[in-house]
Amino acid sequence: MPKINDNYLKLKAGYLFPEIGRRVAAFAMENPAAKIIRMGIGDVTEPLPAACVEAMHKAVDDQAKRETFKGYGPEQGYDFLREAIAKNDFQSRGCDVAADEVFVSDGSKCDCGNILDIFGPGNTIAVTDPVYPVYVDTNVMHGHTRAADERGEYGGLIYLRATAENNFTPDIPKQKVDIIYLCYPNNPTGTVASKATLTKWVEYAKQHEAVIFFDAAYEAYITEENIPHSIYEIPGARDVAIEFRSFSKTAGFTGTRCAFTVVPKSLKGRAGDGSQVDLYRLWMRRHTTKFNGVSYIVQRGAEAVYTPAGNEQTRKLVAGYLDNAKLIREGLSKLGLKVFGGVNAPYVWVQTPGGASSWNFFDTLLRDANVVCTPGSGFGAAGEGYVRLSAFNSRANVEEALRRIGAIGQSAK
Amino acid sequence: MPKINDNYLKLKAGYLFPEIGRRVAAFAMENPAAKIIRMGIGDVTEPLPAACVEAMHKAVDDQAKRETFKGYGPEQGYDFLREAIAKNDFQSRGCDVAADEVFVSDGSKCDCGNILDIFGPGNTIAVTDPVYPVYVDTNVMHGHTRAADERGEYGGLIYLRATAENNFTPDIPKQKVDIIYLCYPNNPTGTVASKATLTKWVEYAKQHEAVIFFDAAYEAYITEENIPHSIYEIPGARDVAIEFRSFSKTAGFTGTRCAFTVVPKSLKGRAGDGSQVDLYRLWMRRHTTKFNGVSYIVQRGAEAVYTPAGNEQTRKLVAGYLDNAKLIREGLSKLGLKVFGGVNAPYVWVQTPGGASSWNFFDTLLRDANVVCTPGSGFGAAGEGYVRLSAFNSRANVEEALRRIGAIGQSAK
Repeated sequence: MPKINDNYLKLKAGYLFPEIGRRVAAFAMENPAAKIIRMGIGDVTEPLPAACVEAMHKAVDDQAKRETFKGYGPEQGYDFLREAIAKNDFQSRGCDVAADEVFVSDGSKCDCGNILDIFGPGNTIAVTDPVYPVYVDTNVMHGHTRAADERGEYGGLIYLRATAENNFTPDIPKQKVDIIYLCYPNNPTGTVASKATLTKWVEYAKQHEAVIFFDAAYEAYITEENIPHSIYEIPGARDVAIEFRSFSKTAGFTGTRCAFTVVPKSLKGRAGDGSQVDLYRLWMRRHTTKFNGVSYIVQRGAEAVYTPAGNEQTRKLVAGYLDNAKLIREGLSKLGLKVFGGVNAPYVWVQTPGGASSWNFFDTLLRDANVVCTPGSGFGAAGEGYVRLSAFNSRANVEEALRRIGAIGQSAK
Repeated sequence: MPKINDNYLKLKAGYLFPEIGRRVAAFAMENPAAKIIRMGIGDVTEPLPAACVEAMHKAVDDQAKRETFKGYGPEQGYDFLREAIAKNDFQSRGCDVAADEVFVSDGSKCDCGNILDIFGPGNTIAVTDPVYPVYVDTNVMHGHTRAADERGEYGGLIYLRATAENNFTPDIPKQKVDIIYLCYPNNPTGTVASKATLTKWVEYAKQHEAVIFFDAAYEAYITEENIPHSIYEIPGARDVAIEFRSFSKTAGFTGTRCAFTVVPKSLKGRAGDGSQVDLYRLWMRRHTTKFNGVSYIVQRGAEAVYTPAGNEQTRKLVAGYLDNAKLIREGLSKLGLKVFGGVNAPYVWVQTPGGASSWNFFDTLLRDANVVCTPGSGFGAAGEGYVRLSAFNSRANVEEALRRIGAIGQSAK
C-alpha cells in the first residue's frame, strides 16, 4: 500500500471556514425564517467591472474563430498581461520589477502553498499570529513543522504576535529565521505596515539572508499616503522578497480566478553543497512543469483592469467596499466596541466585548443579529478575543447588520 | 539563506518542448521564408465548440450582474459540472463513480504533479518508457528518485519499456511497486490498452496494494469497440486507481483550462504507524487548502460539452483530428515508414527510417520538409528511434506536410 504523506495527519480538524459553514448551516436549519447576513468569509459580492466583462466577451469570441483561437499559452502568462502588471503595479510606483519576473497564476492561495515546493527541509519559518491559515497549513503539509500543541500551534514554527498591545506590529524576531510570511494590508487584522516597518523587515532579511513572502492581495485598499503598496518600494527588497498579488479583491475575481507572483531574478537560495542557486530558475521550472497557465479568457479580463475604464471601475468597486468598512468601524465604535483596521483594508478587527471568546461572540452575533463573522481565534492564538468583519457586502446588508448588532446592545441594556 | 529543494538540481537540462522551440526558432531565423508546419507539441488548433462559446458568454454575463455574480466557488468544482461528469463520463459506461469523487481542476498536468503531495517518501514508483515527461519530473522534484544516469534515467524509478517488440504493451513488473503511472490512449505512442491488459494491471495493483495513476486525457479519441475509456470499467479498479481527465483534447480547452481527477472514496494509503488512511480525505484537504477552484466561466463552458449540441460538436472536433491521424498514418505508411497509433489517439508514432536517431530525424524533417515533430527520445530511452507526429492541425496543413515529407523521399531517390 502506498505510503501517505504523514504530515497531513498533523493538520488540525479543518480549515476555519468549513467550521463556520457548519455552524451557520445548523443555525439556518433551526431558524429557517432568519435572514442571515454573511460577513465572515472575505468574498466579494459586487459584479465584475464592465471593462473586464467586455474584454472577456471578446476573448470568448477569439476562442470561437480559428484565426484568433488560443491553445496552450505561456505557463507564466501572456506578455500582454505580464507587461501591464509590471508597468502599472510596480514600475509606476518606482519598483524595479520586470515583466518576466511576474508569474501569472490562478490564485494567491495556490501560489502561497506552491512556492514551498522549491524550498527544502531545514528552514526556520516565521508567521505572524493571527495569520492567514493557508500559510501554516501548507507548511505543515510540507513537513516543516512538528505536531500541534494544545493551543493549536505547530512545533518548529516561529509565531510573531500581533495584538492591540503592540499595535498589531509584531517585533522583528530575535533569532535567525530563513523564511518570513508578511501580509499587508493584513488579513485578518486590517492593519498596515509603514515604510519604516517594512524597511526594518528588509534589513533583517538582508542581515540574516532570509526570504520574505509578502502577500499584498489587499494593496488596492490602501487609502493613506506613504503606506507602501509593494514591498519592492523598500530599497533592497528585490534581493530578499517574493510578492503575491491577486485580482480577487481588487477587481472582484474571486470566482473568475487570476493572480500573480513576483520572483525577482536577484533572489538566492542555498543548495545542500553550499552553492547559491537562483530562486527564479527554480520557480520557473516549477511553474512550467506543474502548471499550464491561466485561461486566456481570464487573462484578457485581468488585462482590462489596467485600461483607463477598467482602472476607474476597479477603483469605484474598491471604494464601495471601503465605504462599507468605514460604516462598520464607525457603527461598532459608537456601540462602544473597540475596532481596528478597515481604513486601508476591507476587514475590521473587532475586540469582543466583556472578554468573550471569539467563538462565543461569533455565536452571539449569529443568534441575536443573524450576522456571520469570522472568529479571530481561527487565525491563531493571538486572535482569541477578536472577530473579523468583512466589508465585502452590499451597502444595504451592511446597514442592516449594523442596525441588528445595535439592537443587541439595546435589548441587553 | 533559505535552503532550496535540492531535488530540483537533479532535473535534466529542460523540459522537452523548450528544446524543440529553441531548434525551431533557430531554423526559422536562418530560413525566414520557410512555412513551418508544427506537428510537434500536442496542442489543438480548431476553435471551441459553439455550445461552449455560448455557455461562456452567458457565464460572463452572469459575472456582470449582482444577482447572478459568483465569487468563490467550491474548490472541488460546482455540482453542475461534477454531476455532468459523473453521469456522462462514468455512470453512462457502467462505472461506479459518484459526483463527489470528481475534483475539477485547471489541468491534468497540474493534477498529475499535485497528486504526489499526499504521498510520502519511500514509495516504489513505476513509469512506462516512453513516458509523458511530467510524471518523471514531478517525482524528481518530490525527491522520489536519485540522480539521472547517462541515459537520462533516474535512479529509483522503475521503467517499463514499451516498444514495437512488445507491441507497446509493457510487461507487468516482476517486483512490488507502490505507484504505477499508466496513460491510455498513450501519449506519445498513440497505442491503447485492451480490457484484458487493464484487468491485469488492476489485479496486480490489488495483489501488491499498489495505486494506479491512470491518465485518460485522450479517451475521446478511442474509436474501436471494447477498448475501455476509463479504468473504472475494470472490476475492482475503484479500490486501486486514480483517474485523470481533461477537456483539453476533447473540447479544445488547452487555452481555456479545465480538467478533473477522480479519487474514489474506497482508495487507501498506509500511514507511518501502519494504519490505513483514506486517500480521498487527504486529496480533499490538499485540494481545498492549496487550490481555489476553476473559473466559474470556464466551468460553465465545460458543462456545455455534455449538452446534446456540445456533445455533437465535440465529437466532430475529435473526428476531424482523427481524420488527420488517419491521413498521417496512411501517408507515411505509403512512403514505407513504419507507423503506430493514430487509430484511437491523435498521435502517430513513427519509427525513424534507416535507424536514424530521433533528433536526427527531427532535424531532417525540419530542414527538408519544414515540419516540426517531437523526437521520441525526449519521452525516454525506449523512445529513441521514433518521432511523434500530432494530428492536431488543419487538414490543409496535414496534407501539405505529407506532400513535403513525400518529396524528401523523392529527391533522395
